[in-house]
Amino acid sequence: MASSTFDIPRTQRAAQVCAYGKPLVINPSYPVPSPESLAPNECLVKLETAGVCQSDLHARDGDWEGLRPPLHLVCGHEGVGRVVAIGAGTQDSSVLIGDRVGLKFMARTCLRCELCRKGNEASCQSSQVHGFTVDGTFAEYAVSYVDYVTPIPDGLSSAAATPILCAGLTVYKGLKQCNATAGEWIAIPGAGGGLGHLAIQYAVNLGLRVVAIDTGDSKRDLCLSLGAEKWIDFRESIDLVQDVIEATDGGAHAALVAAGGAAPYEQALYYLRPAGTLVAVGLGSGTAAMKAPITVFVIKALKIVGSVLGNRQDVIEALDMAARGKVVTHYTTRRLEDLDSVLHELEQGKITGRVVIEF
Amino acid sequence: MASSTFDIPRTQRAAQVCAYGKPLVINPSYPVPSPESLAPNECLVKLETAGVCQSDLHARDGDWEGLRPPLHLVCGHEGVGRVVAIGAGTQDSSVLIGDRVGLKFMARTCLRCELCRKGNEASCQSSQVHGFTVDGTFAEYAVSYVDYVTPIPDGLSSAAATPILCAGLTVYKGLKQCNATAGEWIAIPGAGGGLGHLAIQYAVNLGLRVVAIDTGDSKRDLCLSLGAEKWIDFRESIDLVQDVIEATDGGAHAALVAAGGAAPYEQALYYLRPAGTLVAVGLGSGTAAMKAPITVFVIKALKIVGSVLGNRQDVIEALDMAARGKVVTHYTTRRLEDLDSVLHELEQGKITGRVVIEF
Amino acid sequence: MASSTFDIPRTQRAAQVCAYGKPLVINPSYPVPSPESLAPNECLVKLETAGVCQSDLHARDGDWEGLRPPLHLVCGHEGVGRVVAIGAGTQDSSVLIGDRVGLKFMARTCLRCELCRKGNEASCQSSQVHGFTVDGTFAEYAVSYVDYVTPIPDGLSSAAATPILCAGLTVYKGLKQCNATAGEWIAIPGAGGGLGHLAIQYAVNLGLRVVAIDTGDSKRDLCLSLGAEKWIDFRESIDLVQDVIEATDGGAHAALVAAGGAAPYEQALYYLRPAGTLVAVGLGSGTAAMKAPITVFVIKALKIVGSVLGNRQDVIEALDMAARGKVVTHYTTRRLEDLDSVLHELEQGKITGRVVIEF
Amino acid sequence: MASSTFDIPRTQRAAQVCAYGKPLVINPSYPVPSPESLAPNECLVKLETAGVCQSDLHARDGDWEGLRPPLHLVCGHEGVGRVVAIGAGTQDSSVLIGDRVGLKFMARTCLRCELCRKGNEASCQSSQVHGFTVDGTFAEYAVSYVDYVTPIPDGLSSAAATPILCAGLTVYKGLKQCNATAGEWIAIPGAGGGLGHLAIQYAVNLGLRVVAIDTGDSKRDLCLSLGAEKWIDFRESIDLVQDVIEATDGGAHAALVAAGGAAPYEQALYYLRPAGTLVAVGLGSGTAAMKAPITVFVIKALKIVGSVLGNRQDVIEALDMAARGKVVTHYTTRRLEDLDSVLHELEQGKITGRVVIEF
Repeated sequence: MASSTFDIPRTQRAAQVCAYGKPLVINPSYPVPSPESLAPNECLVKLETAGVCQSDLHARDGDWEGLRPPLHLVCGHEGVGRVVAIGAGTQDSSVLIGDRVGLKFMARTCLRCELCRKGNEASCQSSQVHGFTVDGTFAEYAVSYVDYVTPIPDGLSSAAATPILCAGLTVYKGLKQCNATAGEWIAIPGAGGGLGHLAIQYAVNLGLRVVAIDTGDSKRDLCLSLGAEKWIDFRESIDLVQDVIEATDGGAHAALVAAGGAAPYEQALYYLRPAGTLVAVGLGSGTAAMKAPITVFVIKALKIVGSVLGNRQDVIEALDMAARGKVVTHYTTRRLEDLDSVLHELEQGKITGRVVIEF
Repeated sequence: MASSTFDIPRTQRAAQVCAYGKPLVINPSYPVPSPESLAPNECLVKLETAGVCQSDLHARDGDWEGLRPPLHLVCGHEGVGRVVAIGAGTQDSSVLIGDRVGLKFMARTCLRCELCRKGNEASCQSSQVHGFTVDGTFAEYAVSYVDYVTPIPDGLSSAAATPILCAGLTVYKGLKQCNATAGEWIAIPGAGGGLGHLAIQYAVNLGLRVVAIDTGDSKRDLCLSLGAEKWIDFRESIDLVQDVIEATDGGAHAALVAAGGAAPYEQALYYLRPAGTLVAVGLGSGTAAMKAPITVFVIKALKIVGSVLGNRQDVIEALDMAARGKVVTHYTTRRLEDLDSVLHELEQGKITGRVVIEF
Repeated sequence: MASSTFDIPRTQRAAQVCAYGKPLVINPSYPVPSPESLAPNECLVKLETAGVCQSDLHARDGDWEGLRPPLHLVCGHEGVGRVVAIGAGTQDSSVLIGDRVGLKFMARTCLRCELCRKGNEASCQSSQVHGFTVDGTFAEYAVSYVDYVTPIPDGLSSAAATPILCAGLTVYKGLKQCNATAGEWIAIPGAGGGLGHLAIQYAVNLGLRVVAIDTGDSKRDLCLSLGAEKWIDFRESIDLVQDVIEATDGGAHAALVAAGGAAPYEQALYYLRPAGTLVAVGLGSGTAAMKAPITVFVIKALKIVGSVLGNRQDVIEALDMAARGKVVTHYTTRRLEDLDSVLHELEQGKITGRVVIEF
Repeated sequence: MASSTFDIPRTQRAAQVCAYGKPLVINPSYPVPSPESLAPNECLVKLETAGVCQSDLHARDGDWEGLRPPLHLVCGHEGVGRVVAIGAGTQDSSVLIGDRVGLKFMARTCLRCELCRKGNEASCQSSQVHGFTVDGTFAEYAVSYVDYVTPIPDGLSSAAATPILCAGLTVYKGLKQCNATAGEWIAIPGAGGGLGHLAIQYAVNLGLRVVAIDTGDSKRDLCLSLGAEKWIDFRESIDLVQDVIEATDGGAHAALVAAGGAAPYEQALYYLRPAGTLVAVGLGSGTAAMKAPITVFVIKALKIVGSVLGNRQDVIEALDMAARGKVVTHYTTRRLEDLDSVLHELEQGKITGRVVIEF
């Protein structure tokens, strides 16, 4: 099964973290693993695209405690490409050579621990993570796992599929846990960003009514065009809590915080209506802490739900909605050579939607 | 229907808040509302017992923002007694004169707003609260509402039933939201107190395995006798987080925080296993805030659930378990005249179980 | 509160059941209850519209065991009108004279039994039912209950709101229990009828993909225009089970059976995919029984969910979606004098959408 | 990894189905697969015990449409033993040679289809089934799969663990879907049998109150000793429906039907209280069909839940409760040579509890 009709080069371009806090280094001759070197259940994927995500800043800077990539690792954790080789000895593979597949933050999970058995794969303690523990997607080729790569539906372009694999999955899974039913209000701080612009669309597809919170005219226009009913510019609002309460006729039933920093979290505790749910997906700097007055969230009977990524089923559902045209990723394509400047723009909040690297 | 065969006096003993932060004043001749003065749907209850709760300290001190009793209000918000009169014009009452009923924190809720319609009665914005907005249970007679008083099951003494109406309800409802299934571990900080000693028993009845966290030998003995499998003394533990993780074979699936202050909340974020749930019921001083690092609860996919009291169905379920002997309230009885010293002992954490005033 | 600025006549037109199985009799001088005769919590409503429902055939024929209207009762159980009087002694009414409200199958429920406390109001054993136990909506005036009438949102015409109060509520509540998530397939037998055409729209609003099952070109056109992705004419299909399986890529995740008779139920057991859910709302003749082979639904792990009406919250949600234009009722208006022929056409399956009587 | 320190014979005793409807044939020299013949992810298990289940009658008789064992297959689908060999090329096995493991009805499932991804492994369409599609546990050695065998907790004997793997799992999973909360009533028809006697105990552990339904004094004594509060002998009851309603103060909240045949199913529809749930796990003859009057289960808003086996997590939870002494299997041990007479007794309903074959 290791045989491949593809012509696989010996070296490739790949963006490595070579010093924490410094720009990623694009290595023009990083080795491509040979098909023969693949272990059973591993596959080699020739990438067409790779998405750039806020988390890549943390990989670059090595500032996530407990999840710091070893030096010289290839970064990147969402990408789409074709399987060009499968490790010898693989039993009963679910993907075939030539299949178009997606690589996700989770390169693999054990699928057998208590957390995996319950469907919480993203919390598996024996997982491998692209771009953090194993080489990632900012390269022309990447090794992943036949049981964990995700088939990309026909009719969805590789570039459009890419942001769904991490950003789309994250917000879709978060929304599944927001406890709001169709017709209820959800506030989305960070609505105009990579996560947020997808969150608006998934929320609308679940029948929710959206208050988009972000700043700037281009983000406002994007949010409203994607189905948000209300827009609040957090820089212009004098009393954001009151504005959300008014926009939602008494308080939002849910909030999906797709922005970083403590403020959007703490505001949500005040604009949610009693018995509401705050879903937390935005990670911010990694050191921010929400200060939650106990009487507030107890007496209001609020739920605060930490949500991280999603499992194999969640990503298939998220992609299916995109393939059916219900969710459209807004992205601009760039070259691998632009990665450093892209990360720089991302850091400064200058990117609307998502950036996808095309190889 | 206002007629009553009971001999109702004109005055009674009642404990009023006369100055915030000062001892409650026991008025020996507080007026008893006459049956004729009752509005439709009101009932007059001759109290046999009243429970003393941590919240009474906040009533006395007037330190809960937004829920400060007006001066001269009668305090107390859990009690059991007999209906001795029902307001004229009451249609189709669900209780009859002579019935033994319980009065709860919630004196009444509207039963028709969005929150009530969804079963979140304790979050109703049009509620009346015994001891905070209307006279409470530290009196020989109290006015309550026929639709909201709770029938007390035969075979359960009034004294034993009393702490279920607030403390029992609170922890039972909290446990219903802890997302742990039978056989999983729950940690209970504050396990030896009024809330906690009931929480242990309800948890055991749901099949959960309990790690009790509190301090002192008498609390340890009580907790273990009630079914807790493990005991951790937070004053003696050198590393409480690690101790809970070891006691639960990798982290508790849930925590019910029945203690006040920020520390028990913040510790729970670290000893819960991924995808675990922290249920918050302990209110503490009213100003404490949990500092929750965002990366911790997002990456661990934790849920934090604020839970307050419960609804009419919850309290009936909680009482039923007590009536069937599955949950035993540990209380000592005192006289109304002792109330001030009881509150003082409560403030100092000297009370194991619950104190019930008997009239 | 009984005072009213409305000019209330002494008599009215009303359609009564005078002999089971015979046409309803339109009484031109049926008495209108006087405001003075109203009990506390009762209200008199001047009806603008009344919907005609399959259940009216059972009222007319008296063929529902246990729910046979007494002779001379006024039939009809969904209608919209204005409150023109409220019984003296009503405390704290949630509706005011002049409000536009909806009357439902459930005229009132006790709101305090175990079933009501749990939100299963439609199963309350102490309920009153318009058109079956108390006078209904086929009349110019009807008495209902202030706690149970439903406010009609502005911007929704009375005629458009009417079918939501029974048909819309029924299918919306059924869909809430179908266990399918956005993007999954639901089959709707009876899709072109009064229940079904609303079910399609509510399903689409929840993000579900719809296979409409019914017969005839006009129903096909209606179903597809309302958002159904697939259409199967059960009269033309040679193998309906196989056709649904193919249309849904391996079997529907859920079915909402809005048609009467046993066949649509039994077919669903075979076209549902494993772990699927059949929601039953269509009642048919009242004597039909589903023959469910035990090995089939056990080994396929199917759920069969009987669903009847919904509660006060459900109907508000259902109306809200209609008021926001997400669900459009397809109805034709007729006069009360046409009621007998409308019922006749309904019996013969000749009605697409719903008929609304206008007064 | 294929190496083994165990001394593995070439032949063994094994009970095969050689003609449908005839006694199983005990072959004294059935070949034992050699360690070298094992594929990757396969393991060879030296069995200590095998449980005898109602389903074995269907294997013997070949009367389950779609799940008829090929002739000469070894029957049996629950058993406990030690891993003595693991196929060469197995990556990262979760079990080691020497581990004590359980074999279940499901020998393996794909763990990647939609049903597996959602946790419905027992409905996987690519599964292998011990005793039906691959050799089973009525043999001294059996081949199973490293990802699917279940670790047996220390402190639980192999014989006691055996019935949990199929009967215990089945009822435990069924109870997880019964929608009844602690303190509510569940009726269990077939309470004295292999499934039922475990169902009583799991139900009690979940806090449910049990009405046991079965026949005969020995079953009555067993049921009451296991925690059932009420007993109804279906042969002695004149009106079983009424008897259950009285025993449960108005109707059971749930029923777990562990008996075969249509009658126990149909009775449940009548003794359940409105909004109740019937969980179906008993398969009976394979041809029985429940006749469910549509008006009955729609108007009562009943749920009927088909439940089959459970997944890898469910079985671990079920075993854990047994290992902690909360659930005790009642079994008698027999020899493989007795299998035919055991099956005969089972067929005649003469077996209380479960029979376990010891090797």
